[in-house]
Amino acid sequence: MPSDLETYFQDCRRDVEAALDRILAASHAPAVVAEPIRYAALGPGKRLRPILTIAAAESVAPQVGLDVTAARAAALPAACAVEMIHAYSLVHDDLPAMDDDALRRGRPTTHVVYGDGMAILAGDGLLTDAFRVLASWPDGDAREAASTARRLRALTRLAEAAGSAGMVGGQAIDLAAVGQPAPADAPDAAAALEDMHGRKTGALIRAAAVMGALLVGADARLVDAIDVYARELGLAFQIVDDILDVEGSADALGKTAGKDAAAGKPTFPALYGLAESRRRAAACIDRAHRALTTAGIAGRLGEIADWSLTRTR
Amino acid sequence: MPSDLETYFQDCRRDVEAALDRILAASHAPAVVAEPIRYAALGPGKRLRPILTIAAAESVAPQVGLDVTAARAAALPAACAVEMIHAYSLVHDDLPAMDDDALRRGRPTTHVVYGDGMAILAGDGLLTDAFRVLASWPDGDAREAASTARRLRALTRLAEAAGSAGMVGGQAIDLAAVGQPAPADAPDAAAALEDMHGRKTGALIRAAAVMGALLVGADARLVDAIDVYARELGLAFQIVDDILDVEGSADALGKTAGKDAAAGKPTFPALYGLAESRRRAAACIDRAHRALTTAGIAGRLGEIADWSLTRTR
Repeated sequence: MPSDLETYFQDCRRDVEAALDRILAASHAPAVVAEPIRYAALGPGKRLRPILTIAAAESVAPQVGLDVTAARAAALPAACAVEMIHAYSLVHDDLPAMDDDALRRGRPTTHVVYGDGMAILAGDGLLTDAFRVLASWPDGDAREAASTARRLRALTRLAEAAGSAGMVGGQAIDLAAVGQPAPADAPDAAAALEDMHGRKTGALIRAAAVMGALLVGADARLVDAIDVYARELGLAFQIVDDILDVEGSADALGKTAGKDAAAGKPTFPALYGLAESRRRAAACIDRAHRALTTAGIAGRLGEIADWSLTRTR
Repeated sequence: MPSDLETYFQDCRRDVEAALDRILAASHAPAVVAEPIRYAALGPGKRLRPILTIAAAESVAPQVGLDVTAARAAALPAACAVEMIHAYSLVHDDLPAMDDDALRRGRPTTHVVYGDGMAILAGDGLLTDAFRVLASWPDGDAREAASTARRLRALTRLAEAAGSAGMVGGQAIDLAAVGQPAPADAPDAAAALEDMHGRKTGALIRAAAVMGALLVGADARLVDAIDVYARELGLAFQIVDDILDVEGSADALGKTAGKDAAAGKPTFPALYGLAESRRRAAACIDRAHRALTTAGIAGRLGEIADWSLTRTR
């Protein structure tokens, strides 16, 4: 990664983590559930989704007449909300009734530390509180009608992406397929795999970026360009994840290499082979760049797209 | 119950269930999770919370210059959202990692039919979709700035009530207390019991009624009166639940009488005795009536308060 982009990532992470820390510290939740919520939300993480929210807001800011500081401030409620929803989804996905993972990023998962029941509640709390944060964030602009309408649009998009037609639906498809994987050569295997990932991870990544554009008041043309960009980025991310799962060492990945393939889960390399998978990821990133260029969007989003192809973890 | 109130309840239930049916039928959720969501949301239920939303909206309607039909239409998004959140909470509470209940209202619970993992996801989906429904409900008024601001305020209140400081927090306190009940004569046992119930069931009942008032544009004085009314009603409801658990036959309750006491859970009768518990419930309902009278609110809310004392299930 260019050291400049790494600095940008660190800068975004610092702002998001400081805001999350403030939100959780101000909560009136009883300690018994506040503690697992902190554990889940403030543990180590890439913070990819909130970085996309901030980068999207900042990238369209010049076209809506905002400076970068104002754009980041406007994006921060959605950045925190999307990270809280991502954190909840990991807590629930790791449960024994789901993927049954005892470790995540080198730490025991939330249910291992606090028990299954409290982990379910911590996830429920994070999910619900995310909508509270986005709906009620106290900013100077919040009483303006335009700001209120944008907030409601962003929240609608977030709920659509995270709900039963989006992330929850994708996880349900994935869960139902355990032990009965479709043959990789089924005629619709590729479409089914893309549908599952589009829901399970793609929808939230798209919502993350789109919310950034919505909250600074971008018009439909800019919002659509950001949406296409994030759709392609999300798919490339998933393809690269699958490639790294085959190629990467356990050390670099922080998890057991080849785990998905061993679990009989469908993957892009299993479907297309490694070379074709790489070609497809690159084609996604080309389309992502084209969406930005056509709409005249500069800034960090293009660099993030390039980084997504070359990352090693 | 007066047959007139029973007719009103049936009328509200019909509207809410028809709206929920339309919402779920229009969902793009994959069948594998859409089915348990339908099972959980459209099973038998009192629909107390959405009835309160509608009754609150209709009761303050004359004072904001709305007719009853318009008030009910304005309240319906929140009525559906609060019932979806109630339904999700039952699905998660019934899980083996929580209260471990296999039956609810005579039917197998969602996880018994669909498995623990899919029940967790169905609950997650209902919770998330509830916010989508409230944020995006397509009504004629939705593009007006006033309507948008009301929607966002109602949604904030709902998320506060359902989140880690409200319902989730109350359930967490309850879960953490399993197997280590506080002695009933501890000096703060009464305050702790009221705090737990205030979060676990009270907060959502209050939000249900308050949202009805907010969505028709009631002013702060009316909203506060509805809030006090619903706070007292919610506490009376819980005290009567505890009394019925001691006195009621399993037949009338649809569950095993004395179950809470047998589980060592703190109850109002255990704390105060039956006679004093009855007196306290009646005092709550007196205060609920007084809040309505002072604000000049007529309509069904008073009848609902009286019914809550005399109900037998």
